[in-house]
Amino acid sequence: MTVLSAMALAGVPEVRPGDDLAAILTTAAGGDLRSGDVIVLAHKVVSKAEGAIVQLDGVTASARALELAGALGKDPRQVQVILDQSAEIVRAEHGVLISRSHHGFVCANAGVDASNAGAPGELVCLPRDPDASARALRAALPGRPAVVIADSFGRAWRHGQVDVAIGIAGLAPLEDWRGRTDAAGRELRATWIAIADEAAAAADLVRDKSSREPAVLVRGLERHVTADDGPGAAALLRSLGEDLFR
Amino acid sequence: MTVLSAMALAGVPEVRPGDDLAAILTTAAGGDLRSGDVIVLAHKVVSKAEGAIVQLDGVTASARALELAGALGKDPRQVQVILDQSAEIVRAEHGVLISRSHHGFVCANAGVDASNAGAPGELVCLPRDPDASARALRAALPGRPAVVIADSFGRAWRHGQVDVAIGIAGLAPLEDWRGRTDAAGRELRATWIAIADEAAAAADLVRDKSSREPAVLVRGLERHVTADDGPGAAALLRSLGEDLFR
Repeated sequence: MTVLSAMALAGVPEVRPGDDLAAILTTAAGGDLRSGDVIVLAHKVVSKAEGAIVQLDGVTASARALELAGALGKDPRQVQVILDQSAEIVRAEHGVLISRSHHGFVCANAGVDASNAGAPGELVCLPRDPDASARALRAALPGRPAVVIADSFGRAWRHGQVDVAIGIAGLAPLEDWRGRTDAAGRELRATWIAIADEAAAAADLVRDKSSREPAVLVRGLERHVTADDGPGAAALLRSLGEDLFR
Repeated sequence: MTVLSAMALAGVPEVRPGDDLAAILTTAAGGDLRSGDVIVLAHKVVSKAEGAIVQLDGVTASARALELAGALGKDPRQVQVILDQSAEIVRAEHGVLISRSHHGFVCANAGVDASNAGAPGELVCLPRDPDASARALRAALPGRPAVVIADSFGRAWRHGQVDVAIGIAGLAPLEDWRGRTDAAGRELRATWIAIADEAAAAADLVRDKSSREPAVLVRGLERHVTADDGPGAAALLRSLGEDLFR
């Protein structure tokens, strides 16, 4: 019987650009990392360690940013940073700016942290290549656990946010049961399961948002952990032609 | 420190219309249910126990069902059942039929199980009122654990399905951090967290799709379990005006 467990790693300090995140996580885990483990990280610590931070002071808003900011009631420089991170604006109304990021993620503000999450005047962006970030972290962690980098995304038809995987190394993004049958030989309905997104969601449940718990150790997913790093979160993105809303 | 655990209950038999699902779950749990526990159920067992089943033999396809079925390559009677369960067809192309169910859920096939999940010639629909089903189960279970009824839904921009909550009793559907601050006094970004959907996703990770494991016991969510049954999964639905795609 599979038992899943998820536990936040205590004692992760404030991460700054240039910090050795793998060393920080190794210390926080007390050396107890195994090859079938999954480490789920809030993207913010990865972004910070990588310096994916923009100083608002150095941003000049374009005419488009000024226009959008006026309509949305946002800081024009912040909107400019979001535009810089976006391949396409999906929706901009009622104070909501949803875009497709250069990575292909459809989310609010292109994943740019619009709250005061960094130092004052700083915006934290998504890592430039979250799958590469996950692979580098995995390679540097003792025991080579799988690594999932997560962010909180809203959904088209449902309230609230859930954490999803934006970077993955060593965990199957999807489990494919298409064409397979159940114990009674009947075709299965839910056939293509977004394992990494469900792992990100599970990890989020143990993270106290008001304290510094960006790293969660998930156990019980050994059967989805792979020796190679795999296709990453890129495999979770619908191509534009498959998008249900184009 | 919060530790989340999720474990499938073994020994749940095939459920049939009229079965006492609470009694079945109590037996499967070996009597070990506590007030802070969360039981996550695949909707299918609830639907079956409630008789939310349609015999294809008794279905007559309307002109619209025949037309859609032809375009999608589906059984016209199956399409008729989906239409009967739908308030609105959201998309019908490339073999995909996405609708808004009468409950307000936007999902493939209005949640009607289009595979051979029931007996041959049977379709399993969503429970008629999943929040009411969850409340009734909770009231009948020893220890009054929270109850979440889950289904696997696709997403607009991401591949694969994740389990979400379609019926809830006793678990906060959403955790509201809006306007609250982190340990350093900074405004939080991810501020409205769909706890019940994340719990459904976590539970799905331990359910072997090929065996009969419709019930998962989740522990570690005590702080989200409420004495009253709460607003249910209805609170997770965006109103039509807030829908990001209208």
